[in-house]
Amino acid sequence: MLEKARELDAADSLAPFRDRFDLPEGVIYLDGNSLGCLPRATPARLAEVVAQEWGKNLIRSWNSADWISLPQRIGGKIAPLVGAQAHEVIACDSVSVNLFKLISAALAMQAQNGKRRKVILSEPGNFPTDLYMIEGLEAQGLAERRLAPRESIADAMDEDVALLLLTHAHYKTGELFDMAALTRAAHAAGALVLWDLSHSCGALPVDLNGCEADLAVGCGYKYLNGGPGAPAFAFVAERHHDALQQPLSGWMGHAAPFAFSDDYQPAPGVDSLLCGTAPILAMAALEVGVELIAEIGVARLHAKSQALSEFFRECLAAQGLELDLVSPPDPAKRGSQLSFRHPQAYALSQALIARGVIGDFRDPDILRLGFAPAYLRFEDMAEAARHLGEVLATGEWQRPEFAQRAAVT
Amino acid sequence: MLEKARELDAADSLAPFRDRFDLPEGVIYLDGNSLGCLPRATPARLAEVVAQEWGKNLIRSWNSADWISLPQRIGGKIAPLVGAQAHEVIACDSVSVNLFKLISAALAMQAQNGKRRKVILSEPGNFPTDLYMIEGLEAQGLAERRLAPRESIADAMDEDVALLLLTHAHYKTGELFDMAALTRAAHAAGALVLWDLSHSCGALPVDLNGCEADLAVGCGYKYLNGGPGAPAFAFVAERHHDALQQPLSGWMGHAAPFAFSDDYQPAPGVDSLLCGTAPILAMAALEVGVELIAEIGVARLHAKSQALSEFFRECLAAQGLELDLVSPPDPAKRGSQLSFRHPQAYALSQALIARGVIGDFRDPDILRLGFAPAYLRFEDMAEAARHLGEVLATGEWQRPEFAQRAAVT
Repeated sequence: MLEKARELDAADSLAPFRDRFDLPEGVIYLDGNSLGCLPRATPARLAEVVAQEWGKNLIRSWNSADWISLPQRIGGKIAPLVGAQAHEVIACDSVSVNLFKLISAALAMQAQNGKRRKVILSEPGNFPTDLYMIEGLEAQGLAERRLAPRESIADAMDEDVALLLLTHAHYKTGELFDMAALTRAAHAAGALVLWDLSHSCGALPVDLNGCEADLAVGCGYKYLNGGPGAPAFAFVAERHHDALQQPLSGWMGHAAPFAFSDDYQPAPGVDSLLCGTAPILAMAALEVGVELIAEIGVARLHAKSQALSEFFRECLAAQGLELDLVSPPDPAKRGSQLSFRHPQAYALSQALIARGVIGDFRDPDILRLGFAPAYLRFEDMAEAARHLGEVLATGEWQRPEFAQRAAVT
Repeated sequence: MLEKARELDAADSLAPFRDRFDLPEGVIYLDGNSLGCLPRATPARLAEVVAQEWGKNLIRSWNSADWISLPQRIGGKIAPLVGAQAHEVIACDSVSVNLFKLISAALAMQAQNGKRRKVILSEPGNFPTDLYMIEGLEAQGLAERRLAPRESIADAMDEDVALLLLTHAHYKTGELFDMAALTRAAHAAGALVLWDLSHSCGALPVDLNGCEADLAVGCGYKYLNGGPGAPAFAFVAERHHDALQQPLSGWMGHAAPFAFSDDYQPAPGVDSLLCGTAPILAMAALEVGVELIAEIGVARLHAKSQALSEFFRECLAAQGLELDLVSPPDPAKRGSQLSFRHPQAYALSQALIARGVIGDFRDPDILRLGFAPAYLRFEDMAEAARHLGEVLATGEWQRPEFAQRAAVT
């Protein structure tokens, strides 16, 4: 398959973008869905922010380098990747913190419309932090968590549901929700919708406004390549800006933070989602990653993502490997990953890592391989599939060291 | 005074630490209380984290570089600076977000003790975000904000007060609260205390456990030199760890985040204050700043801070300058700053900046000069005082460009 892979690479219009990333030698990185790779432009940009903007210009950089506008500026660059207008997106805090703000905002919007709805509907097995942040509001007595399996979500949508909170691409299986259909169903039931785009943004097209989505959050450190723990982003549809209220009312979300008044007055629109001072070094790195993904464009990324994962399956089939695929076989119905169920998934993932093929493991039995289309080659697919076949054939995954669980898996 | 200043510098045992910072030429930086200077070790450390830990080791660095423990590791290094035990402090999120967690936690602790107290007592003119975060909980119906001038705080402490929330060193005037006395008064009234250490930590000794303080937050980007918007920290006294509950219950605060279970189980102690994924690049820079300040030690920093500011006043007096000092004249009663009231404080601050003397302005009429003792010289005091005298004598602050307000002041 290596020959065919090289032909595909030679014909790949995105191939030149691989050089825009600083990839380690001897590694096939199938975990860009967990932590994206380092753009080559990031170290120099970060060094400049540190040495010049911080070191030399110090406090003046809030104005001279326009640090103060970074959340809006980066938000504006993320917006076209998710089908939003620039002023509907802001980069700040973490996905978890932004979930808290937007779940709270949804409850406040319902209350403003005279509806005492408290139920936040999601699915079991959603990414844990989405479920945990609902619980935080539940412990405050402000929300009530309801979970329904994805096939019965429509049935669970009654007049108590304030908000439907779902992750577009499932972190474990990659299965996609039909964002347009579920948003319509929620609206028909008088609920708002909050989409978590962490596992889709930057790898596949998202059309928030085309779907008439209300709220969304997304991750900066996966397909946006913003660096480990990069700030996240939040989206609020323009039609909700006047009603937007959230409880993390910090000074950076004030209409006039430098008036230092005792009373909070929210800034207009998504600016009121800001809370504390933005981590400028982390924001600077995020901006580089976002710009690079925006330059490539999600349509091309999506096409290559599908081609890569389908070719990987072809390479498995060519070896006669039959694995238990838990991701949808139709590439149009999954995110940029393939997940396989295997009773020894952890040991398998460790044996692959030892060979330089870095995917990951998701408790209890999932081997997850992500295909970040911005920097992967078809050759990587052929090689990764070969390694997987060899690991299974040799049984080397049974070596005792591969059973040792690390702190972070 | 320059000669005397140079003698003082020659005798200053902290003088060698100035070279551990990368200070811009031609600048006297009196704003380290707003954004601390760049430690010389930071660029190389950050470059290593970016190129090696992120770029080469990628996702593996969560284990191999122990990214996962950064919040606890940095917290443990901050702990001795504030009179806490290592396991009582954690570095995460922003001061604002941590205020929300700890105000909420205090309300939950009161409720666990069967007290339905909802009042959060603070003073008018406290740093805005402290007041705004109370308002966030007030808008949720969970808290009630009460403000009392500092001289009548004791009188305002009745049986409705759940929490006293004060800033140790006032951001505008530098005036210090008597932390031990107010903590005692709060406890006598059945209230808990949350101290905001943003303007004291790293410049003067803080003894949280000596004062029997309950809760505290502090800033990473001022005297800790962690970089613009560096993550903040939070303290919870050990005796409250079992009762600790906070609503930003994100996956990183879970007892077993990588078990990916649907239900939230808080990690023990301050680990449960974690919410989303830590911004590793910002954390790495913070760690360097904290280590440097810890190496110098707050006792020596405090002594020099007092000597610097007193010498600055001496230099003003030697010029016959009588300014309206709003900071306490007794250095034992103020933080590491001197603030002066002047009707044209903004223009004055701009004229000083044009001469390379960077202080700042606080609405409406305060010229604020901070004396970060880790890198300032007595010579800087003499020169800054001379510039201030000249700016006032020449009237150059009246130039129209100095009246133009920037976005960030």
